[in-house]
Amino acid sequence: MTRLDETASGVFVIAVTPFRADGAVDFQSVDRMVDFYLGVGATGLTVLGMMGEAPKLTAEESRDVVRRVLARVDGRVPVVVGVSSPGFAQMRALSDAVMGDGAAAVMVAPPASLATDAQIVTYYHGVAEELGDTPFVLQDYPLVTKVQIAPSVILKIVEDLPSCVMLKHEDWPGLAKISTLRAASDAGARRISILCGNGGLFLPEEMGRGADGAMTGFAYPEMMVGVCRHHAAGEPGRARDLFDAYLPLARLEQQPGIGLAIRKHILARRGVIADASLRRPGAKLSAADIAEVETLIARQEKRLGEIG
Amino acid sequence: MTRLDETASGVFVIAVTPFRADGAVDFQSVDRMVDFYLGVGATGLTVLGMMGEAPKLTAEESRDVVRRVLARVDGRVPVVVGVSSPGFAQMRALSDAVMGDGAAAVMVAPPASLATDAQIVTYYHGVAEELGDTPFVLQDYPLVTKVQIAPSVILKIVEDLPSCVMLKHEDWPGLAKISTLRAASDAGARRISILCGNGGLFLPEEMGRGADGAMTGFAYPEMMVGVCRHHAAGEPGRARDLFDAYLPLARLEQQPGIGLAIRKHILARRGVIADASLRRPGAKLSAADIAEVETLIARQEKRLGEIG
Amino acid sequence: MTRLDETASGVFVIAVTPFRADGAVDFQSVDRMVDFYLGVGATGLTVLGMMGEAPKLTAEESRDVVRRVLARVDGRVPVVVGVSSPGFAQMRALSDAVMGDGAAAVMVAPPASLATDAQIVTYYHGVAEELGDTPFVLQDYPLVTKVQIAPSVILKIVEDLPSCVMLKHEDWPGLAKISTLRAASDAGARRISILCGNGGLFLPEEMGRGADGAMTGFAYPEMMVGVCRHHAAGEPGRARDLFDAYLPLARLEQQPGIGLAIRKHILARRGVIADASLRRPGAKLSAADIAEVETLIARQEKRLGEIG
Amino acid sequence: MTRLDETASGVFVIAVTPFRADGAVDFQSVDRMVDFYLGVGATGLTVLGMMGEAPKLTAEESRDVVRRVLARVDGRVPVVVGVSSPGFAQMRALSDAVMGDGAAAVMVAPPASLATDAQIVTYYHGVAEELGDTPFVLQDYPLVTKVQIAPSVILKIVEDLPSCVMLKHEDWPGLAKISTLRAASDAGARRISILCGNGGLFLPEEMGRGADGAMTGFAYPEMMVGVCRHHAAGEPGRARDLFDAYLPLARLEQQPGIGLAIRKHILARRGVIADASLRRPGAKLSAADIAEVETLIARQEKRLGEIG
Repeated sequence: MTRLDETASGVFVIAVTPFRADGAVDFQSVDRMVDFYLGVGATGLTVLGMMGEAPKLTAEESRDVVRRVLARVDGRVPVVVGVSSPGFAQMRALSDAVMGDGAAAVMVAPPASLATDAQIVTYYHGVAEELGDTPFVLQDYPLVTKVQIAPSVILKIVEDLPSCVMLKHEDWPGLAKISTLRAASDAGARRISILCGNGGLFLPEEMGRGADGAMTGFAYPEMMVGVCRHHAAGEPGRARDLFDAYLPLARLEQQPGIGLAIRKHILARRGVIADASLRRPGAKLSAADIAEVETLIARQEKRLGEIG
Repeated sequence: MTRLDETASGVFVIAVTPFRADGAVDFQSVDRMVDFYLGVGATGLTVLGMMGEAPKLTAEESRDVVRRVLARVDGRVPVVVGVSSPGFAQMRALSDAVMGDGAAAVMVAPPASLATDAQIVTYYHGVAEELGDTPFVLQDYPLVTKVQIAPSVILKIVEDLPSCVMLKHEDWPGLAKISTLRAASDAGARRISILCGNGGLFLPEEMGRGADGAMTGFAYPEMMVGVCRHHAAGEPGRARDLFDAYLPLARLEQQPGIGLAIRKHILARRGVIADASLRRPGAKLSAADIAEVETLIARQEKRLGEIG
Repeated sequence: MTRLDETASGVFVIAVTPFRADGAVDFQSVDRMVDFYLGVGATGLTVLGMMGEAPKLTAEESRDVVRRVLARVDGRVPVVVGVSSPGFAQMRALSDAVMGDGAAAVMVAPPASLATDAQIVTYYHGVAEELGDTPFVLQDYPLVTKVQIAPSVILKIVEDLPSCVMLKHEDWPGLAKISTLRAASDAGARRISILCGNGGLFLPEEMGRGADGAMTGFAYPEMMVGVCRHHAAGEPGRARDLFDAYLPLARLEQQPGIGLAIRKHILARRGVIADASLRRPGAKLSAADIAEVETLIARQEKRLGEIG
Repeated sequence: MTRLDETASGVFVIAVTPFRADGAVDFQSVDRMVDFYLGVGATGLTVLGMMGEAPKLTAEESRDVVRRVLARVDGRVPVVVGVSSPGFAQMRALSDAVMGDGAAAVMVAPPASLATDAQIVTYYHGVAEELGDTPFVLQDYPLVTKVQIAPSVILKIVEDLPSCVMLKHEDWPGLAKISTLRAASDAGARRISILCGNGGLFLPEEMGRGADGAMTGFAYPEMMVGVCRHHAAGEPGRARDLFDAYLPLARLEQQPGIGLAIRKHILARRGVIADASLRRPGAKLSAADIAEVETLIARQEKRLGEIG
């Protein structure tokens, strides 16, 4: 399998992990999900992310999910695997295993114990040493990790560690950070790929600032694909038209806690996964939640018809 | 001045505090801002809120700003004043002063030291005892206050403390909370007013769940006014049409930190306040930020034209 | 193996996990450590706790460490196993496994996502349902978990869930909580065991408030054993004499982050474990740190000689 | 009044603010407290600190307390005034006022919104610009401020801002930080004064690492004075003997929340202040709390007798 490098672009969908109603991993739905994501134009997949309920999987299940995804993808797009862990030993064990299985890169978020610039840089030095030549994605998601990573820290990591090939950008607010990083690469720093998260909620602006695409999991990944394509085609207005049509629903899905339940509900509704359940403990939707989602989907379809 | 009660509804705009470039309070802009807010249909105003840069005002300035607003409002709408403070003595001093000047109610957020249900209930008992018969608004904004207030805690406060007349609802996610509170009042609990924050970003859903309106500060308060009116007129679809037209910009303005700078930029651009500066220390917009705002305003105007 | 019940008392030592310099688990040291803890009078052991570097072990290592400890203990004292996990499936898998291997109970800390009283109670209902009739210890350590558990919440859990047999008490400040819980059991609530943490730093006061002992990991567990015994013998003054002699060192060891490195250094110095290393990433002691420890040990020995 | 400079050493006691039972500031007790602190050997005083309940004072009360302290001190020792504030305008207003009244320096803690190294450095640049040539103390207390300040950040502030003359060191763990800062000044960096907090709980080690003394508020400040003097006299063993005698009580007083109530209780018991009350909202001691304090005071007196 080709390894991920700094030129990655487009939409890496953060895959959900489908469960059956009894809580077991639903591997049939894994296959269908992979087909769906690739069918709408994903240029990559990311598994075992936070929105993949990775912390609720056993070590064996994690391996099995990754293998199933890799088998179904069959080399068509690169697959990134989240391997964040409190201990380097586990991180390396999982990383070595999934890279051996054919993953293209791993993704590592900083533990909440890190605070100062030096602590963060030191941590990623340790990560890179542990991972060897495996390419890794730096996950920058302060709302959840509680770790603020300054642009200068990212640049230092990029300078020191050649195996850091991508930033999963999910700071909020985070647009200025993209501009700063791109100004630095224009001035000679190594240019890594920047794919953005936050449910795609700022994707038009992120692309305008120099991002290379999205790595997030909105239940209509065709929105992100379309925005990226229109942007690449030099049509930011069309990108925004498309974005605006999906925004009301994307906004609802981006809520903490309940957002993943909405995402899985929509994916189940679209026939992508068989069951919308989160593994326990996890949020459940009320009738009112579902009615709101239905209203927004109906309006979204109408608006998509209008803009053509 | 009439005091606030449980029947309050519509849009209470969270007022910004206008400063001159040299950092002094700009009282001429305060007047213009009041005229603007009332002109677009605000049914109330809230001053010295978090988005009013209240913590950056001296005690004298706080008093002066409130007086200026009250004088300009001249009884046309109720004015709520934020009085949150680490000490009850200061809270009472400010509350007594502004109520004497003609405010309709005060607003109190919980200090970050509170964690358990009992601690929160006890705190508001202390607040109510301190404030006497002054009506107060319970501010529920966990993203900033770090205090999660359960629906049962709100209901306990409402039951115990008759002077609690309104919830400023700003939990995220928070829609289920509104449903729970309204189910409780349907079942016999005292029904207080619920006005919603979060920059208006969930206003259609919040109204659908039983909220009475908005208390927030988006730079186009006419959006919130329109959504509330259409909703009250039984036209939720029209409410959503209007909401969707403003959503791309509302989303940008709702970002933490930089959001207030965007809001003041737009208010200055609209001629409401003379200068967009935040008091130091405060965020500043870059050229890229401003360009994004301009793009969104142009698209917003176009879309508003389309929906009529 | 006998299961843990509400009558447990004395000192359950929080076991470290010994590693070799190359990072592998050192099972020979596990044996020696068990012998040491039981030799100084431990009435129980707790493995896979936070101070056992549990999050840095793989699932297989966790199982192996527990089995080795159980084999060496050979039924002489009850062994509690930490099974906290983001997902119930993993929690149950580990719990069932270790109970099958002969553990006496499991211990569960609340995830940081819990805030309100109801969320905490609901979470432990889910835990108890998942664990079946396995006795569990409620771990209350807000400094690390970020979850404040009110006494009323503990009492509700105790009332609702018969399988909750012990509180690992580690709130700070936490003395009033013990008094409240004991007053409740005096008034008829089910009385569970309360063993205290915080490195033993408040043990005399905790015993005075009604605690049944300690569950913590100070490198001189004989201090906790002695304090509990003197207290049980009605000699709180002697308990304090002993406590005071160890306090300067206990204070140093109770520092966050570096504290575990101090603990393992002392255990290695005492010949209990072969190597003081923490698994990566983990703190390391400087020469100055070690010199301070040496000074305090020398003074401690002198003082112990004086008090007899 | 002489201004504070980098040579400051000894014990700057963090003054409490005495209140009467009705909540008013007790100025008679302020006088008595100043006499007491200076009588036991304080080389400076710090007012309006976190443990001085400063956030619960009105602006007028703050000014009045500072003036009363300054009048009573009458130039005998330098007085530092806490001026931390969300806004620079207030900070400067208070700083200018108290410096005009005769204070020796001001103290500024970082707001919780700061995270990255650059944000902290930029903030203190803003502070220094605002304060002009007023000497300031950098307060480093992450447990409360939630801001972790790396040694390199402190050194950058010291290098850039000549008006930064002292570090109030209160990190936990924090001993390595002192060593790092002293190694840097040995290597040529400007050497500023380092006075340590944390209730004096690590004072012997802090002095051994190169601190210049203490800035904290334990109710027996003679302990800190004695430790510093013995240390300066080259008798660290005597310093530790004294320290150990007070440690059991210092430990109890260092608890968050309730600690200040214990401190004021002891000061009232010693006749220093008339009333032990905290201003509302504030912690209250139970009978059990007081009994524990009494036990520890009795044992402390006995032990002090033994060591001579």
